[in-house]
Amino acid sequence: MKINTNYLQLKESYLFSHIAAKVREYKAANPDREIISLGIGDVTRPLAPVVIEAMEKAVREMGQAETFRGYAPEQGYDFLRHAVCGYYGTKGVELAENEVFISDGAKSDLGNILDIFSIDNTVLIPDPVYPVYVDTNIMAGRKIIYLDGSEANSFLPLPDWNIEADIIYLCSPNNPTGAVYSREQLAEWVAYARRQGAVIVFDSAYEAFVCDVALPTSIYQIEGARECAIEFCSLSKTAGFTGVRCGYTVVPHSLMRDGVSLNKLWLRRQTTKFNGVAYVVQRGAEAVFSPEGLRQVKANIDYYMENARIIAEALTDLGVWFTGGKSSPYIWLKCPDSLSSWEFFDHLLQRCGIVGTPGVGFGKNGEGFFRLSAFGSRENVLKAMERIKSGWLW
Amino acid sequence: MKINTNYLQLKESYLFSHIAAKVREYKAANPDREIISLGIGDVTRPLAPVVIEAMEKAVREMGQAETFRGYAPEQGYDFLRHAVCGYYGTKGVELAENEVFISDGAKSDLGNILDIFSIDNTVLIPDPVYPVYVDTNIMAGRKIIYLDGSEANSFLPLPDWNIEADIIYLCSPNNPTGAVYSREQLAEWVAYARRQGAVIVFDSAYEAFVCDVALPTSIYQIEGARECAIEFCSLSKTAGFTGVRCGYTVVPHSLMRDGVSLNKLWLRRQTTKFNGVAYVVQRGAEAVFSPEGLRQVKANIDYYMENARIIAEALTDLGVWFTGGKSSPYIWLKCPDSLSSWEFFDHLLQRCGIVGTPGVGFGKNGEGFFRLSAFGSRENVLKAMERIKSGWLW
Repeated sequence: MKINTNYLQLKESYLFSHIAAKVREYKAANPDREIISLGIGDVTRPLAPVVIEAMEKAVREMGQAETFRGYAPEQGYDFLRHAVCGYYGTKGVELAENEVFISDGAKSDLGNILDIFSIDNTVLIPDPVYPVYVDTNIMAGRKIIYLDGSEANSFLPLPDWNIEADIIYLCSPNNPTGAVYSREQLAEWVAYARRQGAVIVFDSAYEAFVCDVALPTSIYQIEGARECAIEFCSLSKTAGFTGVRCGYTVVPHSLMRDGVSLNKLWLRRQTTKFNGVAYVVQRGAEAVFSPEGLRQVKANIDYYMENARIIAEALTDLGVWFTGGKSSPYIWLKCPDSLSSWEFFDHLLQRCGIVGTPGVGFGKNGEGFFRLSAFGSRENVLKAMERIKSGWLW
Repeated sequence: MKINTNYLQLKESYLFSHIAAKVREYKAANPDREIISLGIGDVTRPLAPVVIEAMEKAVREMGQAETFRGYAPEQGYDFLRHAVCGYYGTKGVELAENEVFISDGAKSDLGNILDIFSIDNTVLIPDPVYPVYVDTNIMAGRKIIYLDGSEANSFLPLPDWNIEADIIYLCSPNNPTGAVYSREQLAEWVAYARRQGAVIVFDSAYEAFVCDVALPTSIYQIEGARECAIEFCSLSKTAGFTGVRCGYTVVPHSLMRDGVSLNKLWLRRQTTKFNGVAYVVQRGAEAVFSPEGLRQVKANIDYYMENARIIAEALTDLGVWFTGGKSSPYIWLKCPDSLSSWEFFDHLLQRCGIVGTPGVGFGKNGEGFFRLSAFGSRENVLKAMERIKSGWLW
């Protein structure tokens, strides 16, 4: 038996283990110092009460013969796909229910979608980026070309029409940079993809954090996107579902390649290699999209966004260049004094007792940049900004 | 963008839709006739009380900031992997906790495991078989050779040492035939796989139905299997988790190919393309493995197995040849009077108002055979056997 040797081309990621080791070392040397983490990409607020109520009810149903549910449809229960379509309706996007696929999260679907694409496609990936886009394509042995994000383009690179690509990754609001594409910018991407016959893999996991109504929250708000884009979203950040696991992927019927409907290919992939999401989880997800659910999860998002505002304000006062923090829970800042990402990590830890994420961990163009996250508690964010204001400079 | 054209080689499966259409037609013509389904592969008994209790508690934890849980480890929580190891201990199989990977079900893992194998491997698949083994390999474009199950070998084919294969699928107790390999037979498979350098993909989803203590319930009860086998199991049938979604896959550390640990490759696949199973689900699964949990799920299995016994007894009285029904919830019978699978389907529906599954839906060697399932209610099974006894013959 021969292994898939593409796996041997993967770089080991030491980012988070390296961070943990440095924090351990610092703690050992400074046992009394309280450390605040602004590095976390995970949510911290509990699930909304309507979600808890719906899940409790669903658990009880599973304990009674009359209401017990066995295998669920692989593409998700009608009630949840209906709710997702309703949510898209509020964005001005009309979807058929069988264009929506419920999954256990965007990460699974972003990895698994590649199954329906030929190995022989060129992939265009921005740098810096969520590492999963790169690794999943290395595993399949696809050719990858990178697109440079930089201070000059505010980490919102636009297409280079001289470059040929088949699969294009876009994430907006972006992880790690927090930058958000405008409608005009996305329209340029859609035009480029259509010209190339390419497919855009659009990761909208952070769409719920968009506060500026002028900014798009779905690529289908752009004309022509239904012919060239698959959208991946998740309740992980929208509703604190990182430990509940529920996402949804939209594959429009009008998205065809080689005369074949990608919706049908994805349905075939999912019915063959997936068995649906837990009934209890889908009932919790349905509750998120109820009017009261949307109100409750909005309150959590507002909480995180006030954290982001506090961080952004402190950085503005210090004259630091950054992206994000407005329609995104991430703040991506330029390290002061031309420090490298890791030098600044050490500096912030030593000087302020604050942990963040070195930008270089997200790709070579992240060097010299640094990610802070708004997913902590208000108290910690306020304390961290006090420390930064007094201890930032040498 | 080019699609994965291997998908175009897949045969559409009309098995269950065809069954549904025939049943609809019969109902329309015979509106007063009560139809009993013995075709279902899904469980019908509700979740055990300890599971409900554990899941309710976990849901409440997710609603409180102090006990809320975000991202879970991709390979599963320690508490559940520990419980799975304890369960294997009762089978006389000692596993390290990091040899166990928790997933959302065996179907997902059986499809996804192929990611770590080269396309350039020959796959050996028994016929008749759970269709997923075939389809997932067609999707990747692997060469498939089939192994004939038949009345002569009681649908327990043994290796042909002249055939070269790299990946070998075995399912015991088998779906659809209900046949169970003995220790000696599995030992022959292990010897063959080791000689070939092949890897056995061992599907033990029905292990909890094994009543005969002489029969193996894990391939790791066979010496040498840790060097050649990956085992896939699930709580779907063990504990009625078809709508809860929790399984586990064992990849032993000693399973190496091309000098690489398959455990490490699978870990890398799962950390890149999967984000773990819901906390609430994992707490429910943990409860299954508690002493009281095992007692409660055993009561459900005993209920189904009494159904199987009743079906097997009726068929024995009628002098029908069959496999399964003893250490399996499936009964695989030879259609009487040389009827084809679909002819017998029609006969059983018209004559007795009973729905089963035509064997040919599981592969060409299933032609002339038929699957009955024990997952219905006692009342229906008894009624169905009365009808069969009186209406079976022409």
